[in-house]
Amino acid sequence: MLNKQFFPTVFKRAFASKKKVPRKMSTAPTTEFSREALESVLKRRFFFAPAFEIYGGVSGLYDYGPPGCALQANVIDTWRKHFVLEEDMLEVDCTMLTPHEVLKTSGHVDKFADWMCKDAKTGEIFRADHLVEEVLEARLKGDKEARGIKDEEPEEEDENKKKRKKKVKEIKAVKLDDEVVEEYKTILAKIDGFSGPELGQLMIKYNIGNPVTGEPLEQPVEFNLMFETAIGPSGQLKGYLRPETAQGQFLNFNKLLDFNNERMPFASASIGKSFRNEISPRSGLLRVREFLMTEIEHFVDPECKNHSNFDAVKDIVISLLSKEVQQQGKTDILKITIGEAVSQGIIDNQTLGYFIGRIYLFLIKIGVNPEKLRFRQHMANEMAHYAADCWDAELQTSYGWIECVGCADRSAYDLSVHAAKTKEKLTVKEALKEPITVEEFECDIEKKKFGPLFRKDAPKVEEWLSTRTQCELEDLAKELESKLKISAKIPQMEGEVEIPKDLVKIEKKKKTVHIREYTPNVIEPSFGIGRIIYAIFEHSFWTRPEDSARAVLSFPPLVAPTKVLVVPLMNNKELQQATTVVKSTLRKAQIPFKVDDSGASIGKRYARNDELGTPFGITVDYDTIEDGSVTLRDRDTTAQVRGSLADVVAAVENITYKGLSWAEGTKNLKPFESKSEE
Amino acid sequence: MLNKQFFPTVFKRAFASKKKVPRKMSTAPTTEFSREALESVLKRRFFFAPAFEIYGGVSGLYDYGPPGCALQANVIDTWRKHFVLEEDMLEVDCTMLTPHEVLKTSGHVDKFADWMCKDAKTGEIFRADHLVEEVLEARLKGDKEARGIKDEEPEEEDENKKKRKKKVKEIKAVKLDDEVVEEYKTILAKIDGFSGPELGQLMIKYNIGNPVTGEPLEQPVEFNLMFETAIGPSGQLKGYLRPETAQGQFLNFNKLLDFNNERMPFASASIGKSFRNEISPRSGLLRVREFLMTEIEHFVDPECKNHSNFDAVKDIVISLLSKEVQQQGKTDILKITIGEAVSQGIIDNQTLGYFIGRIYLFLIKIGVNPEKLRFRQHMANEMAHYAADCWDAELQTSYGWIECVGCADRSAYDLSVHAAKTKEKLTVKEALKEPITVEEFECDIEKKKFGPLFRKDAPKVEEWLSTRTQCELEDLAKELESKLKISAKIPQMEGEVEIPKDLVKIEKKKKTVHIREYTPNVIEPSFGIGRIIYAIFEHSFWTRPEDSARAVLSFPPLVAPTKVLVVPLMNNKELQQATTVVKSTLRKAQIPFKVDDSGASIGKRYARNDELGTPFGITVDYDTIEDGSVTLRDRDTTAQVRGSLADVVAAVENITYKGLSWAEGTKNLKPFESKSEE
Repeated sequence: MLNKQFFPTVFKRAFASKKKVPRKMSTAPTTEFSREALESVLKRRFFFAPAFEIYGGVSGLYDYGPPGCALQANVIDTWRKHFVLEEDMLEVDCTMLTPHEVLKTSGHVDKFADWMCKDAKTGEIFRADHLVEEVLEARLKGDKEARGIKDEEPEEEDENKKKRKKKVKEIKAVKLDDEVVEEYKTILAKIDGFSGPELGQLMIKYNIGNPVTGEPLEQPVEFNLMFETAIGPSGQLKGYLRPETAQGQFLNFNKLLDFNNERMPFASASIGKSFRNEISPRSGLLRVREFLMTEIEHFVDPECKNHSNFDAVKDIVISLLSKEVQQQGKTDILKITIGEAVSQGIIDNQTLGYFIGRIYLFLIKIGVNPEKLRFRQHMANEMAHYAADCWDAELQTSYGWIECVGCADRSAYDLSVHAAKTKEKLTVKEALKEPITVEEFECDIEKKKFGPLFRKDAPKVEEWLSTRTQCELEDLAKELESKLKISAKIPQMEGEVEIPKDLVKIEKKKKTVHIREYTPNVIEPSFGIGRIIYAIFEHSFWTRPEDSARAVLSFPPLVAPTKVLVVPLMNNKELQQATTVVKSTLRKAQIPFKVDDSGASIGKRYARNDELGTPFGITVDYDTIEDGSVTLRDRDTTAQVRGSLADVVAAVENITYKGLSWAEGTKNLKPFESKSEE
Repeated sequence: MLNKQFFPTVFKRAFASKKKVPRKMSTAPTTEFSREALESVLKRRFFFAPAFEIYGGVSGLYDYGPPGCALQANVIDTWRKHFVLEEDMLEVDCTMLTPHEVLKTSGHVDKFADWMCKDAKTGEIFRADHLVEEVLEARLKGDKEARGIKDEEPEEEDENKKKRKKKVKEIKAVKLDDEVVEEYKTILAKIDGFSGPELGQLMIKYNIGNPVTGEPLEQPVEFNLMFETAIGPSGQLKGYLRPETAQGQFLNFNKLLDFNNERMPFASASIGKSFRNEISPRSGLLRVREFLMTEIEHFVDPECKNHSNFDAVKDIVISLLSKEVQQQGKTDILKITIGEAVSQGIIDNQTLGYFIGRIYLFLIKIGVNPEKLRFRQHMANEMAHYAADCWDAELQTSYGWIECVGCADRSAYDLSVHAAKTKEKLTVKEALKEPITVEEFECDIEKKKFGPLFRKDAPKVEEWLSTRTQCELEDLAKELESKLKISAKIPQMEGEVEIPKDLVKIEKKKKTVHIREYTPNVIEPSFGIGRIIYAIFEHSFWTRPEDSARAVLSFPPLVAPTKVLVVPLMNNKELQQATTVVKSTLRKAQIPFKVDDSGASIGKRYARNDELGTPFGITVDYDTIEDGSVTLRDRDTTAQVRGSLADVVAAVENITYKGLSWAEGTKNLKPFESKSEE
């Protein structure tokens, strides 16, 4: 059942697969955006940091500090409300520790691997495909330099390329033969398609070694990306840290179906950490060894993938990059409603379209820039043989277009393999409205002759015959017809077993059926939360035109780490009392806030919190003591309005949690002219 | 620094340590409570289930199904609001994968272990202390039988004992000598205090072998309870799954202090999974290999552990079991206010008292029965040598009193060891209001003579001298005085190094100091969420007196998995429309609800949801179509009231999220006489 095609798609779900986007694509990053400036803010304000930094750090592992952690918690809370609660999904929380057998069945033990090669001298380890890619690219660049050709437009940066390039210490301006240039280009165009041994051949043919020293490397070997451990004291129960949350959901299918009163379709959902032992992780939050993901498994009747709530999303206009366009080597975006895309067959079915719409709405809600969001369809060669369709939500960042959400129609693969392995049925039984007549192969055994011939093995042979599929029975019927016997390998019996024609009859028979039994298909939206959060950082970041040192992170209030900064004009007794009232009012309304009563100027205090993405400021001044009024400041425009504390808090609540705009939310408050923010 | 005393306390934090409670204690479980009935509901309604059940399961690993998962999410949400938001804590999310070096420094690599012994024949593995305990207890029981003595009162069930006992296949009625009975009792009284070799000696002396076969076992060996793995492709970076979330918080101390604008005191907090490779886990959710925990590290000035908000908790009356009472072999509970307990010195300091109060309020809020909650102080022999005080919140269940929250004053241990290992200062610098004069030992080196004597080793000797503590300098000064030289082992130098008196002067000197630098102490409340949830199951479970088959889980509305069950009287078009209005109103108010439009009777539909702990029911009937009114039902009393949809939804909101009682919340609604619930 497993073929090579299977894995690229399945394991994209782990959110760390290579990008498969055609490489020469024009991007239009805002000219003002500076990744360095953003990174400096994220580090300084402890959104996140390398884990174990005082011990020198471990690559691919990051800790979230207070603002990053609050942002993440709010994104997760929004996700849970948007999907689990609104859609009535069945959330489950399964263990990360997973025994060998489960991941053997799912295919991960055998195939969840990358190819690596080792420098025997230095001990350095390289990921083979990345290595070949970066060396050939460096040579092509050197060739261009030697030919005096300037890069006409800056090549789009693949998510990892920028940092990887640094590993090739210096690019030598060496002219290559024209044929060699063409060969290199051909290889690079299909770099994702080579097997390990093929990469090894390329390394020999083109003399690709350690990019720094030039020394030859050992041939590529497979490296399984799962973290292995032993469960229990005997050391004999091998286990892994799960590479995805999906398997736990599949294994609980029967319990979930029962919980749902046997009704179809339904969806389960999980929120949790998964793990992937990357060979050499870089690119910050985009490629990590431990990551938070959310996954939905929507179980659906394979014969009807319509969605009862499809109308709610059908008019949403999305940017699509279809497989046809990509196969023509183009990247033209199609702006189209989801309804149209489904009816034109661009998106395979309503359920898939429905989730694409829901994913779109979720991403916009948490701060993704809709201009920097596209849905890219997998091309035929990326897609598993059984998959009907697969779309990735990609977000544009300074690293290029990044796959952040996968949305695949995965057919019945996982339920089928686990059912076959455990002999536990993972199916749905549905009473038919009208009984139907079906023609099916049936196998009748001549019991009287069976016993004498096979003796103690007779039950094994019977068991084997009774567990053949319809296809197999059809073949066996033909074999009986032509050879007058069946020859087969039967479990726990030695050699080839022969069953003569007079012992068994295999015929097509008409049957009346009252129950339809089927294995559901699965539509799986799968979210890499760390990648999404990184994209939100980039999409939200800007600096004030009047002062590029004043950075702002314009998170939507809903997900902002803190909603309100309370700023008493001065730090003295009188204002402290008034501040206490503001604090207890906010606390009662359950609005997360911070107080800054430091001696810094009001402007400076706000600027510090603009960097943290705090959307509102409430200033407490001497008028507050007089009449109970406070000033409300908007982070993005620095506009201020004034009103009673109750009205201001209501405005904050309405804008943050009920989706009102600033204008709508503050229409009862008076504009307020402040002194300059400096 | 590490001594044996250290570990029992530290590792209690992993929430899986043995109970240390005196055993003979009278418990008063409600006579009606049946663990079997509860377990049947929890299983049937998929609150949780063994993980990988279709593969046969793995002991100590459980999955949470939809209601368990929602309950857990609500408990966590409440925890975050109660602690992180209300107390302005700095939440961090650190990785679970942790490199060897960090856990070597913290002491876990060497000491985070239990003693196990193996049956060489069968391969079975036993935890040594549990084994000795259960065999001796079985023999004592057999002795009683032989003597014809009945157990006067059922012995309290230790958390694990019930299930463990099953392993001793049959208890033989064999009379023991009176002295042997006394020896066994003495051993059992201090079973937690034996080392592995001592347990081995007991096994030999009393001929304790495999409890089923009686065959002798191998001597106990230490088994480290951390799951080990390798990080990265080389296999050389050894790592573990964290056994607690605390270490990540300690390692980020400097970043957190900076984030807090260098202000003290402050607290960090973490929510996440930790892991413990139990030797043979049983007792369901009480002893698991992967568990959700929440931990607070409150960093405080060791010289002042007062708490600015102590007044908010000082009048709370709690049940205390102090160490003095326990040391007298008693279990008398002292009911006392926290303020009194601190001022009498029963609780060591205000900060500890403050957190005990906050823990109390949190547990009550999420559904713990205050009658079944006590705070038990660690006895001197349980407590680490550096700890000032340590209290466990224990919850009474059918397994006995279970440690669910630890609250320890951990002094400066962790920050100190990590700072020493990494040479990274983890301290607070505080400008003194007035400079002070201190007397300190100082070490002056005669540089001219140093170089010629030690040559290339001179810097090593200087470095060594300059890093001595005040205590060490005092000793060295005495040594110089008496022996006219210092003899010492110095890192990276061979043998004993001698420093003659004329090369070095060590004297006490007066100094003016403007800055005070100190390593903060840590007060650590640490919550085992799975254990707390299990206790809530028991505390919330009852059956209706009129029908013991009708089980109810009376979760507080705040944490109940679903808040409202919407029940249309009939499943027809007319009522469907009215139901849609109810649904969209609830959705807009963000109140989690489910609809049951099955054909079952109203009473049956409510009964099904009483088992799920759904606190409210809204019935949609033909009057709803007429006048827009609906009926609101209370789960616990089955009382019903009626009013407009808006008023009913407001009542649900006020009771669920604003803490109003049923009577307060429904005072504007009219009592409603329903037909019987059947």
